[in-house]
Amino acid sequence: MELLLLNGPNLNRLGKREPDIYGAETLADIEGRIQRMANESGITLSCFQSNIEGELINYIHDAGDREIDGIIFNPGAFTHYSIALRDAIASISVPVIEVHISNIHTREEFRHTSVIAPVAAGQLCGFGTAGYDLAFQAFLLKREER
Amino acid sequence: MELLLLNGPNLNRLGKREPDIYGAETLADIEGRIQRMANESGITLSCFQSNIEGELINYIHDAGDREIDGIIFNPGAFTHYSIALRDAIASISVPVIEVHISNIHTREEFRHTSVIAPVAAGQLCGFGTAGYDLAFQAFLLKREER
Amino acid sequence: MELLLLNGPNLNRLGKREPDIYGAETLADIEGRIQRMANESGITLSCFQSNIEGELINYIHDAGDREIDGIIFNPGAFTHYSIALRDAIASISVPVIEVHISNIHTREEFRHTSVIAPVAAGQLCGFGTAGYDLAFQAFLLKREER
Amino acid sequence: MELLLLNGPNLNRLGKREPDIYGAETLADIEGRIQRMANESGITLSCFQSNIEGELINYIHDAGDREIDGIIFNPGAFTHYSIALRDAIASISVPVIEVHISNIHTREEFRHTSVIAPVAAGQLCGFGTAGYDLAFQAFLLKREER
Amino acid sequence: MELLLLNGPNLNRLGKREPDIYGAETLADIEGRIQRMANESGITLSCFQSNIEGELINYIHDAGDREIDGIIFNPGAFTHYSIALRDAIASISVPVIEVHISNIHTREEFRHTSVIAPVAAGQLCGFGTAGYDLAFQAFLLKREER
Amino acid sequence: MELLLLNGPNLNRLGKREPDIYGAETLADIEGRIQRMANESGITLSCFQSNIEGELINYIHDAGDREIDGIIFNPGAFTHYSIALRDAIASISVPVIEVHISNIHTREEFRHTSVIAPVAAGQLCGFGTAGYDLAFQAFLLKREER
Amino acid sequence: MELLLLNGPNLNRLGKREPDIYGAETLADIEGRIQRMANESGITLSCFQSNIEGELINYIHDAGDREIDGIIFNPGAFTHYSIALRDAIASISVPVIEVHISNIHTREEFRHTSVIAPVAAGQLCGFGTAGYDLAFQAFLLKREER
Amino acid sequence: MELLLLNGPNLNRLGKREPDIYGAETLADIEGRIQRMANESGITLSCFQSNIEGELINYIHDAGDREIDGIIFNPGAFTHYSIALRDAIASISVPVIEVHISNIHTREEFRHTSVIAPVAAGQLCGFGTAGYDLAFQAFLLKREER
Amino acid sequence: MELLLLNGPNLNRLGKREPDIYGAETLADIEGRIQRMANESGITLSCFQSNIEGELINYIHDAGDREIDGIIFNPGAFTHYSIALRDAIASISVPVIEVHISNIHTREEFRHTSVIAPVAAGQLCGFGTAGYDLAFQAFLLKREER
Amino acid sequence: MELLLLNGPNLNRLGKREPDIYGAETLADIEGRIQRMANESGITLSCFQSNIEGELINYIHDAGDREIDGIIFNPGAFTHYSIALRDAIASISVPVIEVHISNIHTREEFRHTSVIAPVAAGQLCGFGTAGYDLAFQAFLLKREER
Amino acid sequence: MELLLLNGPNLNRLGKREPDIYGAETLADIEGRIQRMANESGITLSCFQSNIEGELINYIHDAGDREIDGIIFNPGAFTHYSIALRDAIASISVPVIEVHISNIHTREEFRHTSVIAPVAAGQLCGFGTAGYDLAFQAFLLKREER
Amino acid sequence: MELLLLNGPNLNRLGKREPDIYGAETLADIEGRIQRMANESGITLSCFQSNIEGELINYIHDAGDREIDGIIFNPGAFTHYSIALRDAIASISVPVIEVHISNIHTREEFRHTSVIAPVAAGQLCGFGTAGYDLAFQAFLLKREER
Repeated sequence: MELLLLNGPNLNRLGKREPDIYGAETLADIEGRIQRMANESGITLSCFQSNIEGELINYIHDAGDREIDGIIFNPGAFTHYSIALRDAIASISVPVIEVHISNIHTREEFRHTSVIAPVAAGQLCGFGTAGYDLAFQAFLLKREER
Repeated sequence: MELLLLNGPNLNRLGKREPDIYGAETLADIEGRIQRMANESGITLSCFQSNIEGELINYIHDAGDREIDGIIFNPGAFTHYSIALRDAIASISVPVIEVHISNIHTREEFRHTSVIAPVAAGQLCGFGTAGYDLAFQAFLLKREER
Repeated sequence: MELLLLNGPNLNRLGKREPDIYGAETLADIEGRIQRMANESGITLSCFQSNIEGELINYIHDAGDREIDGIIFNPGAFTHYSIALRDAIASISVPVIEVHISNIHTREEFRHTSVIAPVAAGQLCGFGTAGYDLAFQAFLLKREER
Repeated sequence: MELLLLNGPNLNRLGKREPDIYGAETLADIEGRIQRMANESGITLSCFQSNIEGELINYIHDAGDREIDGIIFNPGAFTHYSIALRDAIASISVPVIEVHISNIHTREEFRHTSVIAPVAAGQLCGFGTAGYDLAFQAFLLKREER
Repeated sequence: MELLLLNGPNLNRLGKREPDIYGAETLADIEGRIQRMANESGITLSCFQSNIEGELINYIHDAGDREIDGIIFNPGAFTHYSIALRDAIASISVPVIEVHISNIHTREEFRHTSVIAPVAAGQLCGFGTAGYDLAFQAFLLKREER
Repeated sequence: MELLLLNGPNLNRLGKREPDIYGAETLADIEGRIQRMANESGITLSCFQSNIEGELINYIHDAGDREIDGIIFNPGAFTHYSIALRDAIASISVPVIEVHISNIHTREEFRHTSVIAPVAAGQLCGFGTAGYDLAFQAFLLKREER
Repeated sequence: MELLLLNGPNLNRLGKREPDIYGAETLADIEGRIQRMANESGITLSCFQSNIEGELINYIHDAGDREIDGIIFNPGAFTHYSIALRDAIASISVPVIEVHISNIHTREEFRHTSVIAPVAAGQLCGFGTAGYDLAFQAFLLKREER
Repeated sequence: MELLLLNGPNLNRLGKREPDIYGAETLADIEGRIQRMANESGITLSCFQSNIEGELINYIHDAGDREIDGIIFNPGAFTHYSIALRDAIASISVPVIEVHISNIHTREEFRHTSVIAPVAAGQLCGFGTAGYDLAFQAFLLKREER
Repeated sequence: MELLLLNGPNLNRLGKREPDIYGAETLADIEGRIQRMANESGITLSCFQSNIEGELINYIHDAGDREIDGIIFNPGAFTHYSIALRDAIASISVPVIEVHISNIHTREEFRHTSVIAPVAAGQLCGFGTAGYDLAFQAFLLKREER
Repeated sequence: MELLLLNGPNLNRLGKREPDIYGAETLADIEGRIQRMANESGITLSCFQSNIEGELINYIHDAGDREIDGIIFNPGAFTHYSIALRDAIASISVPVIEVHISNIHTREEFRHTSVIAPVAAGQLCGFGTAGYDLAFQAFLLKREER
Repeated sequence: MELLLLNGPNLNRLGKREPDIYGAETLADIEGRIQRMANESGITLSCFQSNIEGELINYIHDAGDREIDGIIFNPGAFTHYSIALRDAIASISVPVIEVHISNIHTREEFRHTSVIAPVAAGQLCGFGTAGYDLAFQAFLLKREER
Repeated sequence: MELLLLNGPNLNRLGKREPDIYGAETLADIEGRIQRMANESGITLSCFQSNIEGELINYIHDAGDREIDGIIFNPGAFTHYSIALRDAIASISVPVIEVHISNIHTREEFRHTSVIAPVAAGQLCGFGTAGYDLAFQAFLLKREER
């Protein structure tokens, strides 16, 4: 099983950025933790973060071409307007789980809508950085079902 | 640790109802599975389902009074209009995780909005009935953090 | 052939309630008349009214389980917001005809929209209490077609 | 008793047009069937169809001048924008029953609104071509009441 | 000076139609009165009414080709949706005065908007059938200015 | 004079629930205080609270049948969507005063609209639990006027 | 017969202000011309302009108390938001004709709506400063009718 | 204790203005009655009415500077658009109770929204002129609490 | 191969009408040019223009009955509201290419929406009268593909 | 060079009013500081504040008549609805710079829109009372350009 | 004559991506075909595709600097939100033809709006990959006109 | 003191691009002028422009990490939709002043809204390229305050 942990704009600043909303953990902390869980489960995991929409699209295309087993994706602010990312996900057959650290429904009105969600396999939000763990677990549950 | 697994209207018909959307598992199947996981983890779990909004409110109040550790709640159609349920959740200090079996963002426009989400600790949707398992895992992760 | 005549909130006050809008006939009058028509046509008819949304849902589930031939349903005010009732109807395969005594399109804006209609087999409004007779006739026409 | 069966644009193509939505019966079939029912009930019935809004208005005016007893009217697409037809109906004292073959509430958003309904005596939809029969029955019920 | 008095759908029913809104005068009465005023002022006046949008467009085109001096136009219900009439007026250089008998701003919401007004030389409403007289006066005032 | 003090969902948790919004008094405190005022004024007062919409409707119907002199009603969250409660109030001739403890206009957007208000005799909000006293005073003033 | 010619904010700058929209005539020119017409017709005319909403309200109240025969009113920008002026007009029984020099329907979106129009006896726009003459004529026509 | 009874535009015409909506009492009647109640309760009361928004603002500022104990304010039509009045109230620490004579929720759509309410201590409407008495009582209740 | 070149309201005035928007060519010029291209390509072409919606519908029905190969259609102003034309196109299996001479997206807001487009095989706009040529080419390309 | 420093409603309460939003400086402080800067730069400055919309309009008209070089204008709450002030500014050729002390985009939704901005030469907000200094600098920069 | 064939995000996946919507041809196929047509017509054609908005902007700027004769541009998902691309096009004088492979009007609501269209010379959609050919033809027609 | 002058998409074309809107100065001219002002004031200034959203985000992050004293930022078209840029600014503690050369409020509707403004320290628009100078002055004023 091969997974991609993909993070969008400003998530490289986790830990530094608005800690009351996003917590004190850094992206490296999270990637490290999920990597360890992957290792323990015999799963190949790669991690990528970019602030450039098109680079994220390229990574999604590549994951589609290589037919990996799943993407854990926090699209950051692109959640709310990047139809290009949505189309990239729709163009591949790899399932994508959309993760948000904060509860987007308690924040500004514009954060309540995700243009990504309709093409995602599942969406979760509000669990803090544990949301990445849950998304990972979701792929584990899927593997067990096979 | 004590949890409540709460299900709203029409979820008593899981398995019979629109299986292409909600899957073939019955509510009894799900409650049984989560009960087994709770037993294994030393967690007290009670389960309740009702089609009557006010009965769900009463259960939420009771959970608040008994100060249990969490509620896994699929509000069904009430998700989209029951401000009374929202206020019930806001009136207690027990964390509530909102679960939807289907991906509500790929369905009718009115299903995209949850009046419950802003008072929930977290929300997840689209994972099928495995969503209940993930919500359970989320409470386990919380317990570990303590 | 077995039918259910189902009435929602405040319809127990027909005859007493705003007679300029809803007419002078009581619900008992209507149920009696449709019962007589059913008897003459060799149709089993049961009647139920409730002001509690969840009780109506329970009756709809029961009708679905017993696989009766049709429901004549006046959802009253629930027409405009009870997505739970809509989901209950969607969860069964029994056809439901939605009846409104008054012409909902000449009244307040919010009465122009029915959340039930998209899952109903047919909808009629504005015929006064004769609307129940027409809904009954519609099921008779269906039986003839078989 | 004298009635007019009036059909608006594209209904001359019934049977040919999108049979999954509108059924296989032609307009001639329907007019023939209602004519037979009228003959049996001693009712004078005339039938008219036009794709030209103004011609339908002329027919409605004429029915108003002759003070006939009712109009069974399927306005087709004019339902959704012809305020001129609405005003024509409002300008006469003949009751008009609005009929739609399909359930307009399960189709495109713009079909959910009728500019005709607020001036109609009653509205029904979703009964297939049997809707014309029910509208005819509604006038019969009215005659019995006298 | 040559003018056209043009009336749209249902205005042939003036006097018969909803007299509390439109008054008791017939269209013939109005046309006669304006004709007499035209005669007294040495103005050529022609009158036309149609319930068919396209016929009104043809008349407007013809007035444009003949380069008459003005059109007094009550578009009736077409006021609110006939962009085709709007384009017809925009396609000629003859000034058009838009007249409404009733005060359209005290009636249904949809009557508050005129798609004709932005291409009209002037608009007046609420003066009853005297509105036609005032529109005629407006053209007289214009002639005096020359 | 006979009055009913009626409270909707979650008001049984007054004092426990979000005290910064709703204050520290319990519902029993309030009911007790108004009961004392009623006793002093020679007024018969009954009190009822429910989290179930249909039970509140039943109480309103009963008050209508018994033709009592007034209802002091805090509909809680039902304020914003229970058209069924609105219709129940419209179906009786007993005047209803709508009370809100908090100032609903300083809270979430959806709390600014009351579907009950258009059928209420009067509405007041923002006075804390003293709002019940003022509603009681309003009925006293009415009695004096007789 | 006694009339009031009332002008709202910025109309004191007619002639100086945006002459491409409002023309070159000054307010004094207009008041003079209407005054001459009034003199010729044996009508008492008073004229008033103010940039202060409350002063216009006071004048309208005064006209109501003195029961004059009509007001020709150009509310200027107050047209679009002064509900206080609307209420002032609604509070008197003197008919008010609303005049706009420019065609408000060809300008900014917010100028298309008049909060005054629903309480005006009639409205006219787009005739340039001749609009005042036409409003005056409208009152003359009314006098003739008596 | 010192209070200000403040009334906005057109309320000087109470009794004369639309008595079916606002009742037959004049503003002087109301001010007299509240003054008597104030005298009996040992409260200093001053009264002011103006049709000019800025004068009302000046009075509110003055009340703020003198730190009186409360303002009973019927903003009339300014309720719906005077953000300047709202800001004036927000700029002082004196509590303001907003009073409406009629039930604003049964009237035109635009009257359902108050820009004042979010900065008011409380709001009441629909009690007729007794609403002023209730607002006065509200301040009495507050004094008792101290 | 047989094609129909169909033009809606006001397009008979091409060349005369607003030449800055629609160019100097007349409809006869365009029809002549496309006819020559058709002749050269061995294609049968018929041309029709009408200002009457119902006549255009009749032509579309006829083309459907004769099963021709395509329609090049400029619906003019009907683009924006004629659901009847839309339904006519949906009722046939002949592909329709929607042509607009001007770029409808640079004009008034209401011109940005086409009710025809969702049932058209393709849409093009902004190419001036060359748009007809391109639509013709599109059918040629289709023929080549066979 | 001659400038006018104009302030709208409630700005006379600067320093007293909501200091967390508007700062501790009084209007006199600001006027004094800008006056000193004007003196140093050889610029004639006059200052005016009013809570009455019409008085501000009069000042703007006067500035237009005297053809001064610029107006620094903080319209306060009038920013959001006073079309009359907008029209006053549009009626003169003096450039107006719109100043807001707070960042209006971080406050209530209705404060995000300025009806003044489209006729202003420039707009600035969020700089605290230093915004007046920057507006003054803007006029200095303009003078240097000449 | 020199043209640029420019494609936006995800169009590099043509052929792989949702073939029921976009067809089986790859981007290389299309570029090859248009290149051959360009060669035959003596036109210099360059091709570029990127998933990065800013790289597309750079190419558009470059085309503007080199003053080529036209751009055939399929902006992909950027069509619906990239105002930056719109501004890039507006900043050059090279005509741009906007091409969409699918009929964007039969897909999700958000795809019906193009922020690019108002600055495009022309727009076409729904012709499949033949749309590129038609856009190329449009430039050929333009060259012929010179 | 260290500042960053940051410019978004298409601003590299200043001088070439729509000079009637943006003026004739190039970006190099502006950067040179502000650099000279910085030198004179002993301020370190760096300048950066990019058409790629993610590169601007990287620069903002870097400025945050280096804790410089301020950013003068013209986000160009990103102003209206780049929530990613907004989040980047929110993630740092460096104050950002948002500059627009043109008056965005006199242009297309979509340019009236800035998603950046709520996280900016201040915003200014409409001053032409002098807006950059004023933003620079704003930081100077801030330095003086310290």
